[in-house]
Amino acid sequence: MVGVETPPVGTPAGMRKINQRAVLDLLRRNGPSTRPQVAKETGLSKPTVSQALLALEAAGLARATGHTSTGTGRSAVLYEADPTAGYVLGIDIGREHIRVAVADLGGTVVARRDERNSARSGVALVAAVGRLAEETVQVAGLRQDDIVCRVLGSPGVADPHRRCFRHAPNLPGWGKAGLLTELEAAVGPDLVIENDANLTAVGEWEQGAARGVDVFAAITVGTGVGMGLMVHGEVFRGATGAAGEIGYLPYGQMRANDDATAEPPARGHLEEATAAQSVVRGARELGLGTAKSAREVFRLAREGDELAQRAVEAEADRLAYTVASIAAVIDPELVVLSGGMSTNADLLREPMDRALHTFTPLVPTIVQGELGDDAVVAGAISVGLRAAEDIVFERRAG
Amino acid sequence: MVGVETPPVGTPAGMRKINQRAVLDLLRRNGPSTRPQVAKETGLSKPTVSQALLALEAAGLARATGHTSTGTGRSAVLYEADPTAGYVLGIDIGREHIRVAVADLGGTVVARRDERNSARSGVALVAAVGRLAEETVQVAGLRQDDIVCRVLGSPGVADPHRRCFRHAPNLPGWGKAGLLTELEAAVGPDLVIENDANLTAVGEWEQGAARGVDVFAAITVGTGVGMGLMVHGEVFRGATGAAGEIGYLPYGQMRANDDATAEPPARGHLEEATAAQSVVRGARELGLGTAKSAREVFRLAREGDELAQRAVEAEADRLAYTVASIAAVIDPELVVLSGGMSTNADLLREPMDRALHTFTPLVPTIVQGELGDDAVVAGAISVGLRAAEDIVFERRAG
Repeated sequence: MVGVETPPVGTPAGMRKINQRAVLDLLRRNGPSTRPQVAKETGLSKPTVSQALLALEAAGLARATGHTSTGTGRSAVLYEADPTAGYVLGIDIGREHIRVAVADLGGTVVARRDERNSARSGVALVAAVGRLAEETVQVAGLRQDDIVCRVLGSPGVADPHRRCFRHAPNLPGWGKAGLLTELEAAVGPDLVIENDANLTAVGEWEQGAARGVDVFAAITVGTGVGMGLMVHGEVFRGATGAAGEIGYLPYGQMRANDDATAEPPARGHLEEATAAQSVVRGARELGLGTAKSAREVFRLAREGDELAQRAVEAEADRLAYTVASIAAVIDPELVVLSGGMSTNADLLREPMDRALHTFTPLVPTIVQGELGDDAVVAGAISVGLRAAEDIVFERRAG
Repeated sequence: MVGVETPPVGTPAGMRKINQRAVLDLLRRNGPSTRPQVAKETGLSKPTVSQALLALEAAGLARATGHTSTGTGRSAVLYEADPTAGYVLGIDIGREHIRVAVADLGGTVVARRDERNSARSGVALVAAVGRLAEETVQVAGLRQDDIVCRVLGSPGVADPHRRCFRHAPNLPGWGKAGLLTELEAAVGPDLVIENDANLTAVGEWEQGAARGVDVFAAITVGTGVGMGLMVHGEVFRGATGAAGEIGYLPYGQMRANDDATAEPPARGHLEEATAAQSVVRGARELGLGTAKSAREVFRLAREGDELAQRAVEAEADRLAYTVASIAAVIDPELVVLSGGMSTNADLLREPMDRALHTFTPLVPTIVQGELGDDAVVAGAISVGLRAAEDIVFERRAG
């Protein structure tokens, strides 16, 4: 992202800016470093490095952070990228919760708010998200101007033409044309919208269970089901952004509906069959009439209730079916279980693995996500940081 | 692919070679061109272009192909990349047929042999493929030395460690360790092995129904089922090369096998349900006791036989299920129907589309492949040409 103010490359000012960026990127990558270390790693001369560090300090992009203490020799000043040069806001909108975090440019979360999503309309949810975002910035002791980039994760796929979400049946009002404009007005400018399962995948890839894995899928199972797919470190979106909308896997329906005028289902077959509510339904069908929530069924299974254990195994079968379908199409190395139900991965994994082997010879490794409820927000912060590094440098440097 | 003989870039010989390659690439891209046209398009000086063309002619890489005839002015010599500078061999191994073609560097097929695959063992099939490849080269009037690159498409996934195929249950002996070494001994050196559905996708992308489509899947349905997936013009292989092994979609089995010691199925559920033989089985179950082949069922459907039409509709349902599964995972823009059954795409597409809409709101465009039975061989030739251009230049130039 090269702003209009960038001096032409061939000019001395242009060269100075390029050198500053090289020094800053090195500090971000390597952490606190001395002038000679920076010179050695960048290949720049020591005077050039000194000049660049002075300019970066003056611009608020780098700062002295201490001294080396190497015994008898002279100590040297350590410089680091100034993490307070800018902040990013990450938002996770789920059917059950709204989560917001603010992080500095070093990725450290400086404020965080979670609350239950009690909104019953799109208008109410937009207002709640806007209020929570504002509060979180205030709690961090920051002004809106300090926020360089805002990233929001939600179920569904952003429709850039109608400015709303497609395929988000669990959030009322989310399909209303113009909703994205309302969200941006409530949250702040230059809002980046991303599918929540995609952000989960980014989060697990950057700092969780999928670090360095070339082809992997993060499956989120909670109120709904979704998948984020990453290939070579990038989110794979498909042709219309709907890659990973695995709620629409045609689970259980092998024949077409004979009624040719039938609308496509708003909720997908797999989502109906596999999301949290189905565990409750399954448990009740097995005779566990008292089960009120998936959480309760898992708790009972943990305590040794046989009916609950059978309900959990049935869910494991459905998840194995899901993984088998994904494996047949994209052959991931790793599947990361995420979302609310993944807190029970210890109960689900073994029966899932067993079922999967009877479905298919294509069996990826299945692990529990490491980020838990933080995955979407962590992914949002990661996406925000990638953009913010450029934006902050372009605003302040030169 | 830069050979060891390449002169260092900074030397005059190195520069000459770079210029020759630039001129040759331009001729390959633009077709017959005059010296001034080449100079203009490459930005090289006319003397440099003349020198490069002379060297390319001497190396057998370019040739004069005629003159411009532009009325009153002087006519100029037209040069083209010499298509006879090398040849590639493409092979398609299917359960029913073996197909081999030899093409020149311009992509023109100069010899082609098809025969029925009557082999009942891996040894017999390897021998048949070797013999047919040799015959095809002879028919083209070429020697084995003229073949710069050999590409073979087969069902299954090449296992580089065991040197055999995985997931190719329809070809006897194909899973035997060392098979690839035997194939290479029979067909010729530097054999490139690729999944047949992947080559179908390459063929349809290069010269068929998917030209220029960013994310698309070619589904092949015949004796088996498979899928080739292309993203940004490259085959998407997944973590172990098994992406697109959609025969393993867990069609119809929603519950795990209770027998924990059960082996994974050699043939996938979807392949059992959807491949050609299932059309016959379906027709018989509907009461069409005489049906002997899928072809016959489709012929009867075409003639108005109601039972056959219902069997075709049931197959369309299964294919819609397949497309719905693929769409939920990767959201392709386009699905190209290929393989033997795609010759009946005219009968299948309408009921497929109808069924698909009742399964899911994610509905890609479905079209019939344009290359028919030639798709795998065409893809093999395309893959071979990409490699051959580098190999031939490195061998002959400089």
